Amino acid sequence: MNKNPEKFWIGFDLGGTKMLATVFNHKFQCQGRARKKTRGNEGAEAGVQRIIDTIRAALEEADVQISQLGGIGVGCPGPLDLDNGILLEAPNLGWDNVELKRILETEFDCPAVISNDVDAGVYGEYRFGAGRNARCVFGVFPGTGIGGGCVYNGNIMRGQIHSCMEIGHINVIPNGPRCGCGRYGCLEAVASRMAISAAAAQAAYRGDAPHLLKLAGTDLSNIRSGALSESVQQGDQAVECILRHAARHIGLAIGSVINLLAPDVVVLGGGLVEALPNLFLEEIRDSAKETGLDNLIHSVNVHTAELGGDAAVMGAASWAREIAGQQS
Amino acid sequence: MNKNPEKFWIGFDLGGTKMLATVFNHKFQCQGRARKKTRGNEGAEAGVQRIIDTIRAALEEADVQISQLGGIGVGCPGPLDLDNGILLEAPNLGWDNVELKRILETEFDCPAVISNDVDAGVYGEYRFGAGRNARCVFGVFPGTGIGGGCVYNGNIMRGQIHSCMEIGHINVIPNGPRCGCGRYGCLEAVASRMAISAAAAQAAYRGDAPHLLKLAGTDLSNIRSGALSESVQQGDQAVECILRHAARHIGLAIGSVINLLAPDVVVLGGGLVEALPNLFLEEIRDSAKETGLDNLIHSVNVHTAELGGDAAVMGAASWAREIAGQQS
Repeated sequence: MNKNPEKFWIGFDLGGTKMLATVFNHKFQCQGRARKKTRGNEGAEAGVQRIIDTIRAALEEADVQISQLGGIGVGCPGPLDLDNGILLEAPNLGWDNVELKRILETEFDCPAVISNDVDAGVYGEYRFGAGRNARCVFGVFPGTGIGGGCVYNGNIMRGQIHSCMEIGHINVIPNGPRCGCGRYGCLEAVASRMAISAAAAQAAYRGDAPHLLKLAGTDLSNIRSGALSESVQQGDQAVECILRHAARHIGLAIGSVINLLAPDVVVLGGGLVEALPNLFLEEIRDSAKETGLDNLIHSVNVHTAELGGDAAVMGAASWAREIAGQQS
Repeated sequence: MNKNPEKFWIGFDLGGTKMLATVFNHKFQCQGRARKKTRGNEGAEAGVQRIIDTIRAALEEADVQISQLGGIGVGCPGPLDLDNGILLEAPNLGWDNVELKRILETEFDCPAVISNDVDAGVYGEYRFGAGRNARCVFGVFPGTGIGGGCVYNGNIMRGQIHSCMEIGHINVIPNGPRCGCGRYGCLEAVASRMAISAAAAQAAYRGDAPHLLKLAGTDLSNIRSGALSESVQQGDQAVECILRHAARHIGLAIGSVINLLAPDVVVLGGGLVEALPNLFLEEIRDSAKETGLDNLIHSVNVHTAELGGDAAVMGAASWAREIAGQQS
């Protein structure tokens, strides 16, 4: 399949606050990496230049030349035109219609493959982590939103143009809380870190979460995974209840997804799950049974992700090699 | 792919009340067909003999010899072991562990492929009907239960052992009505023909559906698609409301499925949709927007099925040829 076994591969993770470039050899061992702040507010042109600079810095650290590159895989947020590698819209960054694939291919003279960041993470876990070589892996990454992805028979499932597996917008509470997408009762509106932080901020304000109040105050932007986890450990029962309620709804949605996809492995990842792995595993395994059919639930393993922050870069890079191999 | 272009293919549809065998030539033109009552209560052994007899009768009508067969495709209800072609359980028939693949391969000396009946129907619509050659087709067949199936890049999506896409067991109303599976609020418990008939029977009993009462009484087993449709046409508004309520929930579940799979075509089939195509199309197109994301909803076409009762036999037979081609 791969005609260039000694080539190197770039994995790139474009996040809302930071970006990470990693250089892998053909065994997907990391040879070098570089990180920069994203600074989306400085505009797309400056942002793209930062992407290029970050890749160059990683290549330098790895002591790899552009001519040695087999390809570049990028994991991106927001709606994408997958085939043309265009960031159609990145709400977190304020960028529009960035032709990332074309720009990177010109700059680095090798194929570039643009994927959804969650899909890249799930593919990473499928290749190297908690879903290694499973027939069907469904990944859920609760964060600011709740992303999902599915690797089925070795391929990332996708839509005609865009990525798919938007588990964050499965309806879990008819006429429930309003979601950022404008609908009511989406999983994301009930169980994302934003929804959790908003409920926890109220608890802190009411005096029901004294530790959280001390740790992070009542400003949503300060109530992050670390503070939530710490306040639970210090004894804020209200925060624990809020987290379990959210996890429970993620599990209910996962049960419905299991009824549709019958995956062999469900991988739970992201900062919130990393901070509180047992709480999430426990609640989700339990509540998925409330909606998932017995014969399908029995044949699925629910695990936490193994690769942490490297899932997306490893997935993006190895998926780029896979696609390049399919096309050559 | 197909090394035997002049072979003939059997499509078989094993239903709860009747069975249908069809002989197709290599262009999937029907050459002969035979039908028998299933009579599940006479036991599996007698049932299997009836299956064999029905196939023989269809072969005779088509004037085709066993030696001319390329393969047999069977669409079956109930949980299946797909690879081994075993009917693990057929609740409607009362059969257990019927090794249909082995039996048919011995009897007819050709490969036999056992599929879920809804999957076979969706594959039929993908090959020859409303989803012709689409990248991703999701099919929904509301009936006694509510079956779903997905053809993605030309293949029927499946679980490790069983079929998948159980849209009937997506949770649509938390703590809603009890489902046959033992859970609460599954789509099937809200919107299957059984659920609709039960609500319509109450309306008839209350005096709110006088036409239905005359047409079918208050016995669920008499309140079938034809009676429901007829009573709406005669002016039973209560029955129309019940049907629209059910269709609406099917649409809400389809919206969530669209968020996951981003299909290009959604096909609605089955007797209930055939009897009231406009009502179902209207409500489902509308309510799917309440849960489906704009960019994914815009790229999906929702259609009614085109092949009627032939979808399953055409799908089962052509899928059998596909599988036989992949294996040879």
